Order: sequence, then C-alpha cells, then structure tokens
Amino acid sequence: MKKRPRSRSVLFLTSNRHKFAEAQTILKPFNIKLIQKPAKGIEIQSDSVEEVARVCAKDAYGRFCVPLLVEDSGLFIGALNGFPGAYSAAIYNQVGCEGILRLLAQERRRFARFVCALAYADSRGVRVFKGIVSGKIASKIHKGAGFGYDPIFIPKGHTKPFSAAPETKAKLSHRARAFKAFGRFLAKQAKHDTR
Amino acid sequence: MKKRPRSRSVLFLTSNRHKFAEAQTILKPFNIKLIQKPAKGIEIQSDSVEEVARVCAKDAYGRFCVPLLVEDSGLFIGALNGFPGAYSAAIYNQVGCEGILRLLAQERRRFARFVCALAYADSRGVRVFKGIVSGKIASKIHKGAGFGYDPIFIPKGHTKPFSAAPETKAKLSHRARAFKAFGRFLAKQAKHDTR
Repeated sequence: MKKRPRSRSVLFLTSNRHKFAEAQTILKPFNIKLIQKPAKGIEIQSDSVEEVARVCAKDAYGRFCVPLLVEDSGLFIGALNGFPGAYSAAIYNQVGCEGILRLLAQERRRFARFVCALAYADSRGVRVFKGIVSGKIASKIHKGAGFGYDPIFIPKGHTKPFSAAPETKAKLSHRARAFKAFGRFLAKQAKHDTR
Repeated sequence: MKKRPRSRSVLFLTSNRHKFAEAQTILKPFNIKLIQKPAKGIEIQSDSVEEVARVCAKDAYGRFCVPLLVEDSGLFIGALNGFPGAYSAAIYNQVGCEGILRLLAQERRRFARFVCALAYADSRGVRVFKGIVSGKIASKIHKGAGFGYDPIFIPKGHTKPFSAAPETKAKLSHRARAFKAFGRFLAKQAKHDTR
C-alpha cells in the first residue's frame, strides 16, 4: 500500500494578512500547512520581483533553517515604464490607486501586468515560482473586495477589476498562479520522498 | 614642525557620473582624493536613505576592505506622503519630473525636501553624514543644469530651481551639506592621526 503524503509545514514570511489568507486558500488542496511569520527580513532594491524574493528567501533560510516562502509582487504599467513595479507596496502607501490614475490621465495605453515571484527555500536551495496576469488599468477606482491595486486592475478578457470579481481573482491572479505552481511542485516532491 | 596631513584616497561607490563630479568638487578643499567605483553593491528596500546607505557601505567594506563612501539621496514630498523618497532614482527613470508634477496637479501644498545620506566605512566602522535642504516643488519644469529632480526643486528662500541656479545648488544642496560634513570629519581625523 502506498503511503499517503504527509501534510507539510511551510513558513510564509509576510506581514500582509490579505496575502496570507489568499495563499492559505490556494494551498489547501495541496495538503500544505502555511504558518505566517510577520518578519520579512532583508529586501533588496531591484526592478525584478524575482530577485527581491530570491535574495530575501536565501537570507531568511540562513537564519531560520526551516522550509519557507517569500513572495514579492508588483504591478508593471507599460505606459509608465514599469512603474510602480518592484516598489508597488511602498508606492501604494504613498500615492495609492489615485496616484496611478492621475499619472495615466489622458493616456490611452492602459496595458499593465501583475507579476508575483514566490521564492521557496529549503535545504536544497531556493526555487522561484512566477505567476503573471496581463490586463489593463481601469479609468476609475472600483471599490470592493481585494487590496492594493485590485480596484484598478482589469484582467485581460474581463470587464471588471479584481476588486469587483474576487472569484476571477482567486482563479487567475498572479499570486494564485505562482502559489499553484508551488503547490504542484511540493506535492510532486512529497510523493517522490515517500516512495 | 607639524606634518602636513596626507591626501587621503576614498572609494566612492556610484555609477552616477553627475554625483561623482559634484562630490569631487565639494571635497577638493579637504585634501581628499575620490576614486569612482561604478559597482554599488547591495541596496536594501527601506524608506530611510540613511539605512540604505549604511547597509550598503557595511556590505561593501566587507568586500573591498578599503575606506569607502556610499551615498543615497531622496526627494521627499509632503503632499505625497514622502513619495518618491528612498526610491527616487528608480522612480525618476520611470515617471520623471513630469510624473511628479502630474501627481501634484491642483495641489497647493508643495513642500518637499531633499535628503542625502552619506555613509563612510573604514576599519573603525560606518558613520553616516546627513544633508537636508528644504524647499518646494515648482509648477513647471525648468530645464538647465543639474540632473534628476533639480528642474522642479526650488530651495527655501529662493525663486529658481536647482537646475537654473547651479551655484546655489553647489552651496546649499543636500549633497553639498553631507559631503562637507564628511570632509570636515576626515580633515579633523587626519590632523589627529598625524599628531
């Protein structure tokens, strides 16, 4: 008889409770138990969310020595040369969605994409899972569910922003895609380890 | 007879040739020979330019083991909650002075300040010299000399932005103030060391 893969515990380094709740929901089917750790540790300045997440996860693993996840996401707007990009969180706290709309006033090019880089560190090293969702910036703010830039981001092929369609977000967001890729990877690894 | 203090060589880690030229001019009277090194090394994400410069200098000294300087500057705009702040350089490349003016359209509160944090690392540790200049954001871009946000920053008590008054900038800019403080410190130390 084949052994049933054990449930795995993984630290998720984030102080953002919205992100943690989203990640928990996504990883439930993969038999992964997430534990929130609010300390994120070192974050480098880089225009690549992948590099930010990778360096942070490597540094954190050196300190905690348990399997852990670090996530870094950004909204990259074409007409603004990738702004707010890897500094999306900090910039959100300063100028918010209003600032983005003001910068794009009278701009017809509204293309944008959300990128999520999820770095998983364990004794084997660091592995990064990326999730990307393309779309456009709305002309006004649609309050509702979600957080961050959700009220102004409309995914490609849809008409409502993430804030007005939580089920769409749960299905195809950058974060959902990265976490699902990680979940599949860990499930495969667990299966392999129990053979 | 008292020995004349030797000229000191100090690495300045920056890839910005404008910053290097400004620093060279300011430090000339202090008998300090600056050597440009384009690799800046690790830069952390922090809303404090002081912390960014300090961590970077400490890390770089650990690698190069020679006296060195790391500078981090930012423009902090009151009405924008400190934006663009510690990410000023990256944000400049994305939205430029035009972006700042757009974010401040119809905003009467124009207060801003430039902050420069200059971290000096040697065998005794890291010391940070800060320079601050207060002022306001102009209503339009004044092209001229300088770089970065100089075309829109008018220092307090003046009517022209830094870009239109290079001699004013050389005298009272955040960078001039921080580098002069460093120059005085090193001159004093050199005098003490030759006693």
